[in-house]
Amino acid sequence: MLPPNLRPISVDDHIIEPPNVWVDRLPRKWQDVGPRIVEVEDASGKNDGQARQAWRWEGRIYKNVGLNAVAGRPRRTWGLDPVRYDEMIPGCYDVKARVTDMDKDGVQASLNFPTFPRFAGTLFLEGEDKDLALACVQAYNDWHIDEWCGYAPDRFIPMVILPLWDADLAAAEIRRTHDRGALAITFPEMLSSLGLPSIHTDYWDPVFAAAQELGMPLSMHFGTSATVPMPSSDSPIPVSFALYGCNSMYATADLLFSKILQRFPGTKVSLAEGGTGWVPWLLERLDYTWDRHRHYTDIPQDTPPSETFKKNIWVCHIEDATGVELRSEIGVDKMMWECDYPHSDSLWPKSQESLLKTLADVPTTEVQAIVEDNARKLFNFDADLRKVG
Amino acid sequence: MLPPNLRPISVDDHIIEPPNVWVDRLPRKWQDVGPRIVEVEDASGKNDGQARQAWRWEGRIYKNVGLNAVAGRPRRTWGLDPVRYDEMIPGCYDVKARVTDMDKDGVQASLNFPTFPRFAGTLFLEGEDKDLALACVQAYNDWHIDEWCGYAPDRFIPMVILPLWDADLAAAEIRRTHDRGALAITFPEMLSSLGLPSIHTDYWDPVFAAAQELGMPLSMHFGTSATVPMPSSDSPIPVSFALYGCNSMYATADLLFSKILQRFPGTKVSLAEGGTGWVPWLLERLDYTWDRHRHYTDIPQDTPPSETFKKNIWVCHIEDATGVELRSEIGVDKMMWECDYPHSDSLWPKSQESLLKTLADVPTTEVQAIVEDNARKLFNFDADLRKVG
Repeated sequence: MLPPNLRPISVDDHIIEPPNVWVDRLPRKWQDVGPRIVEVEDASGKNDGQARQAWRWEGRIYKNVGLNAVAGRPRRTWGLDPVRYDEMIPGCYDVKARVTDMDKDGVQASLNFPTFPRFAGTLFLEGEDKDLALACVQAYNDWHIDEWCGYAPDRFIPMVILPLWDADLAAAEIRRTHDRGALAITFPEMLSSLGLPSIHTDYWDPVFAAAQELGMPLSMHFGTSATVPMPSSDSPIPVSFALYGCNSMYATADLLFSKILQRFPGTKVSLAEGGTGWVPWLLERLDYTWDRHRHYTDIPQDTPPSETFKKNIWVCHIEDATGVELRSEIGVDKMMWECDYPHSDSLWPKSQESLLKTLADVPTTEVQAIVEDNARKLFNFDADLRKVG
Repeated sequence: MLPPNLRPISVDDHIIEPPNVWVDRLPRKWQDVGPRIVEVEDASGKNDGQARQAWRWEGRIYKNVGLNAVAGRPRRTWGLDPVRYDEMIPGCYDVKARVTDMDKDGVQASLNFPTFPRFAGTLFLEGEDKDLALACVQAYNDWHIDEWCGYAPDRFIPMVILPLWDADLAAAEIRRTHDRGALAITFPEMLSSLGLPSIHTDYWDPVFAAAQELGMPLSMHFGTSATVPMPSSDSPIPVSFALYGCNSMYATADLLFSKILQRFPGTKVSLAEGGTGWVPWLLERLDYTWDRHRHYTDIPQDTPPSETFKKNIWVCHIEDATGVELRSEIGVDKMMWECDYPHSDSLWPKSQESLLKTLADVPTTEVQAIVEDNARKLFNFDADLRKVG
């Protein structure tokens, strides 16, 4: 039995940004070139000739309006991304409806990744006008803090995106938004594939320094590196879904064999949508590799990677019986739960059923840690305090 | 305690081909263009100005003579691939010395991957003269069966490479070599990245048909897809070492969501150097994905991937305490052991020590299965019978 007073916190959900985010907040001079929703022809023919909606920004058209926002839709239709707002349930983009949907699922609080800006805000790297791009980043963050999380501060953990083309600007945005209430940063799981310097350089030191100083976790969602697991060029899409965790393994190994967690030992990294059951295997493998290969390579020399993991990295799962079985090897204090609303991986509105099934044999204090307390502690998110204050 | 009569079989070791393999066996007309060892300048300066040796084939120079063949060398020198035969211990390339080295390590029998042809023979895809390339494939296979395995038939499981540019030729080579004693095929873990049709096409049906008919496993070694895990462009090399298993996960997911194991249900796939501890996590994740996404995608509809795994896929590890702990979920009958001689991942000559440590708490019958019997059964390799016959 789950504790009756359990208030699950999901550390991985998604917002479909409503059309007004940038229209409302950008200065008049950027109204036309800034992101706005437009109606476009649907050339795919999949949608019965109905016009689709898309984002337009600096004249470019982005058609991923409803990327994988399939919650509440019949499974047989899942192959098609929703192409119009009216094809999605309102909880995707309307915060009031979202809270209702969280209530239906028994979810107390939620950490939300953006969609149009991509899960780690990497879209804005494409901006030709970097002043506009910075304004777009800030508009998203302000909207997210004020309108989304601000609607119900005890239900949402504010998480911000960064102007990734400039590490100093990014650090400044961390400080600016932390002052406004932000508690977390969404950051790419890997950087090279985005054309950015990797964590093996000192380029990101201003970001890691600010995050460490302010105690803000870097939440690294699967897929934010612009790469997805695809063993064959024609692999069916479920192959990629099943292998999401490999990206999290890549990020984990890269972090633990970098020097950045030595320079910033207070760094907190939360891996999203990668699962947890692979962790003991990878930590053992990392230690084996470290033991044999550190002497002739430029990796941390003094601390085994499994120890660094225990200090710096958190993981989560939707449903992962293997992870639950191996929780003492992963670290019960490093595991969290995610709902993944409104994506196809989510069990919404049956999360409680899943939690009851997979945590049935777990002691109550450990359930409490995994489902709620670890997230509160990691993100410095105390709903009761926030309500009072 | 391990059983005193334990005779470990390693399903993943490596041969450094001696210089005579192709010189001895190619017709006179191809002597000059066929693969032969030449002395070349060492431009790296790493080797004290000593000339390095390289393979020359069709005028092209290939410098990976001793790829990672570091057994017996001090760890601090491991960053440098051996560039001359006299920098390697003779067991790398001399079968008599290899048997002595296996004796030192208590290894009864071994499955050997090639080096110059690459682990799955993919090098010969580069041949301009495809008649010569086919002759090279056949020369390797004949040398491997006659001279390497033939020296001690109770100590080596003969495994052949294929002319991968033509599936019908490949099937014919399977049949030709099976008649000569071959028991296994080394086959790329993934194919698209080699510029070849994937397992989601019917291109490879002749190969899978021949392998199924003759009961020959397809052994898929990490890295045979020409891709290695590299999260950042400048990741230190141990990152890649630690993540080898991700390639095996990619191969597993791709196979289990393909139709090829439905068309050829007798297929036996052996994944090499990927470890085992990740298997329960991946099978659970594959089943979760299958349950949610099969209805709108073209993947097997009737059998959960975890069931297909139990029929068709074998895994192995050098040392993997997590895999041993989870052996009942992986399937004790699907796990094997590998030595990885003479590569840097190997524990040679201390394999017995590692086996004693990691299998100390495992019942004797299960140890026997993992360390010896599963390999004998999978590869139809019965040393006693072969000795008698």
